Amino acid sequence: MSATPASTPAKKTAPDAARRSERSRRAIYDAALGLVGEIGYPRTTIEGIAARAGVGKQTIYRWWGSKAEVLMEAFIDLNEQNARAAAANHPGVPVGASGLPDTGDLAADLKLVLRATVDELQDPRFEAPARALAAEGLADREFAEGFVRRLLMPGLDLYTARLRSAQEAGQLRADIDPETARDLFVSPIAQRWLQGTGPLDHAYTDRLVEYALYGIAARPATP
Amino acid sequence: MSATPASTPAKKTAPDAARRSERSRRAIYDAALGLVGEIGYPRTTIEGIAARAGVGKQTIYRWWGSKAEVLMEAFIDLNEQNARAAAANHPGVPVGASGLPDTGDLAADLKLVLRATVDELQDPRFEAPARALAAEGLADREFAEGFVRRLLMPGLDLYTARLRSAQEAGQLRADIDPETARDLFVSPIAQRWLQGTGPLDHAYTDRLVEYALYGIAARPATP
Repeated sequence: MSATPASTPAKKTAPDAARRSERSRRAIYDAALGLVGEIGYPRTTIEGIAARAGVGKQTIYRWWGSKAEVLMEAFIDLNEQNARAAAANHPGVPVGASGLPDTGDLAADLKLVLRATVDELQDPRFEAPARALAAEGLADREFAEGFVRRLLMPGLDLYTARLRSAQEAGQLRADIDPETARDLFVSPIAQRWLQGTGPLDHAYTDRLVEYALYGIAARPATP
Repeated sequence: MSATPASTPAKKTAPDAARRSERSRRAIYDAALGLVGEIGYPRTTIEGIAARAGVGKQTIYRWWGSKAEVLMEAFIDLNEQNARAAAANHPGVPVGASGLPDTGDLAADLKLVLRATVDELQDPRFEAPARALAAEGLADREFAEGFVRRLLMPGLDLYTARLRSAQEAGQLRADIDPETARDLFVSPIAQRWLQGTGPLDHAYTDRLVEYALYGIAARPATP
């Protein structure tokens, strides 16, 4: 595994050096995300990232094992920044223990989060690196394992936790498996985004939430 | 676009030459699928496919523009063979105009087809070429367009047609969009298979069908 430059250098070194490390780390993330967006993942190299960030190649190799790892950590960092910004944009929305909005209205909370997810997936700053990471995850099984464990599952787990909390509140059927239920509205977004199998907009995510919660069958019935 | 060797040579040439063309085409498909399964897509070349199939490189280039195109048509052919075999394995199941089983019991029909899909996705003959095509589709936007249009959408459209027929029979809510409804049970299978986000078995596909049809909310209600 790579080191964790987000925290390690700051704890090990004197304040000035820590600030320089933090500046370098941020410059490397920005360079990696920028290059992948501009010239694509295949043509992005560690050398190119180092040159644009104004650091030596050794600085990058000290913290990361490959360009895929640099990009993955840059992307995780971008996601964290975005999550903080999203929370700041919805100051009135209570956040539950799951980390997702928890107003007590499950449908409204899910719609809010899924709309924001679709906006993020189509934001040019996110789209190129996210697609590059997903493609690398299909081509390289070992990288895929880290990508899924570090980037994808933590996001999916937020939904599972929100559904579990709704289940405990009696809003979901007691016999449903929250991970399967989560896939009903998360996976369709992933597939439309990854494979372009249909339009990906707010009307679509709203429908997914309604269909998953209330079912598509004509007569409400227990199976 | 590539030529369509499945039919064109047979119409243009004398019977013996047509038989030879058909034999070559089949040998090329088998070689492409076999090599991708054994040595992986990146190391598979047109030269390697030609050598294993016992044909000249020119024969391949006359019909296809790239190894990705050869593999895509080989895979479409494999799917067609498999669909015929599946129909032969379920001789008692009536097939509707949609091309999917149509016994009148939507839940049972969907469970049958989704179980077979999961079995196919995990069949080693399918898995390596299908993953290679999906990865190529993420890395190359132009290839992705053909992959989605020729391979993915025709499969998805079968489900949409089956849901439309159920809707006309009054079994689905009149106001639902069949393409969104289809994604509720097809996309979760795609994501678990592509990204390994959870177990992919018959219990899972059965749950997807039940949740999508009857909803996960505790009290049946209209939104």
